[in-house]
Amino acid sequence: MTVNILFAALPARWASYEAPLSQALTEAGVDFDLRTDHAPEAVDYIVYAPNSAVQDFTPYSRLKAVLNLWAGVENVTGNATLKAPLARMVDHGLTQGMVEWVTGNVLRHHLGLDRYIHGLEPGTWPQDFPPLAQDRRVAVLGLGELGAACAAALRGLGFDVRGWSRSPKELPGVLCRHGAEGLEQTLAEADILVLLLPDTPATQNLLDARALARMPKGAVIVNPGRGPLIDDTALLAALDAGQIGHATLDVFRVEPLPKDHPFWAHPGVTITPHIASETRAATASRVIAENVRRGEAGEPFLFLVDRAAGY
Amino acid sequence: MTVNILFAALPARWASYEAPLSQALTEAGVDFDLRTDHAPEAVDYIVYAPNSAVQDFTPYSRLKAVLNLWAGVENVTGNATLKAPLARMVDHGLTQGMVEWVTGNVLRHHLGLDRYIHGLEPGTWPQDFPPLAQDRRVAVLGLGELGAACAAALRGLGFDVRGWSRSPKELPGVLCRHGAEGLEQTLAEADILVLLLPDTPATQNLLDARALARMPKGAVIVNPGRGPLIDDTALLAALDAGQIGHATLDVFRVEPLPKDHPFWAHPGVTITPHIASETRAATASRVIAENVRRGEAGEPFLFLVDRAAGY
Repeated sequence: MTVNILFAALPARWASYEAPLSQALTEAGVDFDLRTDHAPEAVDYIVYAPNSAVQDFTPYSRLKAVLNLWAGVENVTGNATLKAPLARMVDHGLTQGMVEWVTGNVLRHHLGLDRYIHGLEPGTWPQDFPPLAQDRRVAVLGLGELGAACAAALRGLGFDVRGWSRSPKELPGVLCRHGAEGLEQTLAEADILVLLLPDTPATQNLLDARALARMPKGAVIVNPGRGPLIDDTALLAALDAGQIGHATLDVFRVEPLPKDHPFWAHPGVTITPHIASETRAATASRVIAENVRRGEAGEPFLFLVDRAAGY
Repeated sequence: MTVNILFAALPARWASYEAPLSQALTEAGVDFDLRTDHAPEAVDYIVYAPNSAVQDFTPYSRLKAVLNLWAGVENVTGNATLKAPLARMVDHGLTQGMVEWVTGNVLRHHLGLDRYIHGLEPGTWPQDFPPLAQDRRVAVLGLGELGAACAAALRGLGFDVRGWSRSPKELPGVLCRHGAEGLEQTLAEADILVLLLPDTPATQNLLDARALARMPKGAVIVNPGRGPLIDDTALLAALDAGQIGHATLDVFRVEPLPKDHPFWAHPGVTITPHIASETRAATASRVIAENVRRGEAGEPFLFLVDRAAGY
């Protein structure tokens, strides 16, 4: 029987997904009808972007699952009209892109490259050698798919890596802690801090004035996770006080970051426009097709979201 | 019998080496007399920096070996007064530091970080995603200790890595070529080119106008190797023409780079003051001590230089 799949996302996404998703579904052996305009009561699966027109799931009476196009699900987990299972995107391309952005920025701060990129005074020759990576403490908050991959890559480059997560995790060569006390210790030992936590009520403003004050003086913050993890006002104060040496931020509470936000003018802030990583259509389509195949075969879905925990 | 070891380097080196070298020699079981002022005819080994006062080796009649403090030996291989074996420094700390500097700068160029470090126009939001590392071709010229380690680390990060060396080499996952034809092909496929060749008559001006023209338009050059590998005038012309997109240079024909050199003012050049890596006293001292132990035990020296090849 034909499986009706609704693609609910902005039109630009459809342009990049129509061909690879059709191909992936065909390869998965699914008999499908993929469109942007199915009648709600006929829809079996929604391939979903939380900023799409679909906000009320009530009319989708036979919905088997919502397959999120992105890793972040904070704009859909709170939607009480959604009763069907919700799956996150876990895309190899997204993970690899994040590892590259994170390792590149951590190495940049470790090596102090900004000074040379801005340019030395002509004729000066300050031979200041950075320590080796083994003597640089990097902490990753959040040890899910992305955080764990970044921690492993940083360990592979020789860094002294520690990790923190809500529940206990184990990663080879990484000092992993959890819970409130573990967070305090992890912050206190983070020369460079990478934020890869989900956006949940429990993680909002995790990096507030008190947390920033726990960090080593001059520490660097790298946030490719979620904007609300950081108290913006507290971060600006900590930068002005020299408590935080620099912040490289890819995500913000409001995006695009409003033109009058003080981050734009602050010399201690590097802004990247939510480009740390993106879901790649080709690899993501295979994940979606596999979940449709599983749903039709009665097998458990991959990457199901725990709606109570929020991720 | 006591082994007389002359430490021939600038005074600042002696300050950092006296303690760790004495400790390493003691740990190696050598009965030694380490000084900066032995009578030449009594010297068994010279721990050597090519910019030291010792330039005529003739009076050192019982010299068993010259143990270079650095990896580069171009300022001593041509010294006809040196008849004793010459060993290069191969230091774990130096290799690791070089891997960090090279991977950090390759990732920086791969991700296009300079644009964000210089700062976007406030309020703009250009979401330009770089390709994944697997779709970025990085070439390493020179596959000695340093080049091979860098190629392996870049491969580990997922880059599409190729290597070139004078004589055939094999590295896992790296497309290795050699000889003149291999060089042409390697240059033609290098989105990012890393120079880690020694400075020899055969490598000087290797990157001349013709070689630069062979590279993909907009390619990036990263040179932590040796200054004379590049024809400076040809590089400036290629940058002005857009044939080369950027050059990050750590080494120069004259160092410190003279204040009036056009590299300083060129927006397409990033200058770092010969800091890509340095020999670390603690780890390097163990290499020197091991070579003295080998010499005294009649065992072959480590890291001997082929004086005819120049490295």
